[in-house]
Amino acid sequence: MSDYPVTAQTRLRRMPERGQYDQATVHAILDAGTVAHVGVLIDGAPVVIPTAYWRVGEDVLVHAARATRFARALRSGQRASLTVTLLDGWVLARSGFNHSVNYRSVMLFAVPEEVEDAESKNRLLDALIERIVPGRAALVRPATAKELAATAVFRLPLAEVSAKLRSGPPKDDEADLDWPVWAGVIPLALTAAAAQPDPRQSAGLPGRPPL
Amino acid sequence: MSDYPVTAQTRLRRMPERGQYDQATVHAILDAGTVAHVGVLIDGAPVVIPTAYWRVGEDVLVHAARATRFARALRSGQRASLTVTLLDGWVLARSGFNHSVNYRSVMLFAVPEEVEDAESKNRLLDALIERIVPGRAALVRPATAKELAATAVFRLPLAEVSAKLRSGPPKDDEADLDWPVWAGVIPLALTAAAAQPDPRQSAGLPGRPPL
Ligand SMILES: Cc1cc2nc3c(=O)[nH]c(=O)nc-3n(C[C@H](O)[C@H](O)[C@H](O)COP(=O)(O)OP(=O)(O)OC[C@H]3O[C@@H](n4cnc5c(N)ncnc54)[C@H](O)[C@@H]3O)c2cc1C
Ligand SMILES: Cc1cc2nc3c(=O)[nH]c(=O)nc-3n(C[C@H](O)[C@H](O)[C@H](O)COP(=O)(O)OP(=O)(O)OC[C@H]3O[C@@H](n4cnc5c(N)ncnc54)[C@H](O)[C@@H]3O)c2cc1C
Ligand code: HEM
Ligand code: HEM
Repeated sequence: MSDYPVTAQTRLRRMPERGQYDQATVHAILDAGTVAHVGVLIDGAPVVIPTAYWRVGEDVLVHAARATRFARALRSGQRASLTVTLLDGWVLARSGFNHSVNYRSVMLFAVPEEVEDAESKNRLLDALIERIVPGRAALVRPATAKELAATAVFRLPLAEVSAKLRSGPPKDDEADLDWPVWAGVIPLALTAAAAQPDPRQSAGLPGRPPL
Repeated sequence: MSDYPVTAQTRLRRMPERGQYDQATVHAILDAGTVAHVGVLIDGAPVVIPTAYWRVGEDVLVHAARATRFARALRSGQRASLTVTLLDGWVLARSGFNHSVNYRSVMLFAVPEEVEDAESKNRLLDALIERIVPGRAALVRPATAKELAATAVFRLPLAEVSAKLRSGPPKDDEADLDWPVWAGVIPLALTAAAAQPDPRQSAGLPGRPPL
């Protein structure tokens, strides 16, 4: 797979050895993530909005109610920034200074494009449902024309995008290696627990998540 | 405990019933979170930067290398936005439209203030270490004057701040309750696995995390 171009905006200046620009890495982080944080300008100041997102090909998608502040900011024609972060662990070094975090993150910049026609919105929103529980989109009560009209969907093309990753044990100064404190990593991961059925349903319905 | 004022900036317009402004809720979300997403203006456009953070009293703190773009943006005198998001579950409804996420989030707005003196920076950075493994700050190799000089610490006061929360089962339309698809919640949580010791250390050192 190919690489995304490194632009003035996406070139890592701090710890550039942690940067990656290949499609496979960027896609893998986006597909493993759950929530994105979108930066938009509102009254000239940045606002960071947490939101569900999904990827279809070379587009990252987000959705909102048509008439919200969030949707208005996304259709304003201004550049937005979208970041997805996976926290993989606390890195405990011998010195305070060398403590760190293991992570995988993607940052992208784009002018969001609104998806206007109901058919495309429907298909894209189905992909959001499929991402969470594969096979579920065909089982749920389909969206009505009114619901689709109330929903705004935006695509942010993967063009100006970078990934940054840290993994592995602490990187201590040589002189600190004998300092008498435990050093290592506390691994962290987002994990799912057993699904909790809504009590108001009959037994044995299809679409139950595997866990 | 008291409430934060509801300002033009922090008043929830969408789903205001999910908003909370009391100190206890805001503190609890901040103390349970791990990573913040900070929105800053760079060349007039918003950039969303993932970062470690911590809370001391009525300040949220972040740190960075003194000379980075991130640090320069934080000391620019412009308003920043900081968001902490806890993902608690996928909410699977009978209709696609009523699918949702269970979450707890805090959004705050502030002009960051740089902490200048080395003694305060040292004390505050110790609080970051303590938040991750209580008792660890006293065990690690202390920060040197050079390390503290290379580190920028910023406080964002808790003044313009809101929390927003969703919990519980799907909220389906009455007419959909008999739609033949499983409905409920997939609970999600960030969990720690067994600590991985750096191989380059002798056995039995203090400061090992409990797990
Ligand atoms: C979980 C986590 C915790 C972190 N904690 C801290 C912290 O406490 N303090 C701290 O200073 N930094 C922290 N970072 C790193 C932080 O996100 C920035 O990478 C760093 O602060 C440098 O920012 P900058 O804008 O000065 O970087 P620059 O290198 O100047 O940024 C230039 C370009 O590099 C790319 N880039 C920069 N950062 C990232 C990223 N994280 N992911 C993808 N692309 C990126 C973007 O395209 C950006 O426009 C953390 C990162 C993660 C994921
Ligand atoms: C995990 C998660 C996933 C989400 N997924 C989506 C999604 O896919 N689509 C979608 O439209 N929305 C989603 N939201 C809600 C989203 O964060 C916004 O609340 C919503 O989009 C309305 O934004 P707005 O700027 O139009 O709100 P407004 O109500 O106009 O915002 C006004 C003020 O309310 C407060 N506020 C707004 N949102 C939050 C928040 N999340 N936390 C704390 N304070 C807040 C802030 O002070 C803000 O300045 C999600 C939230 C979370 C936490
Ligand atoms: C548990 C405590 C700490 C954690 C979790 C932590 C985490 C981090 C992370 C994730 C980064 C970003 C690295 C990257 O860009 O990939 C960072 C950068 C940095 N941290 Fe910390 N840190 C901690 C304690 C400290 C302390 C105590 C100091 C100073 C005494 C410090 C000084 C710095 C500096 C100077 C940078 C910038 C590095 C650079 O860009 O070159 N940190 N920290
Ligand atoms: C698994 C799939 C989905 C997930 C995880 C999801 C998640 C969310 C979340 C978290 C919100 C924000 C709620 C809040 O502010 O607290 C939201 C809002 C919204 N969603 Fe979805 N959604 C999904 C599918 C859909 C579909 C299929 C549609 C349309 C057919 C839709 C339409 C909307 C609309 C219109 C809003 C705005 C609600 C409002 O602000 O009044 N969503 N969604």
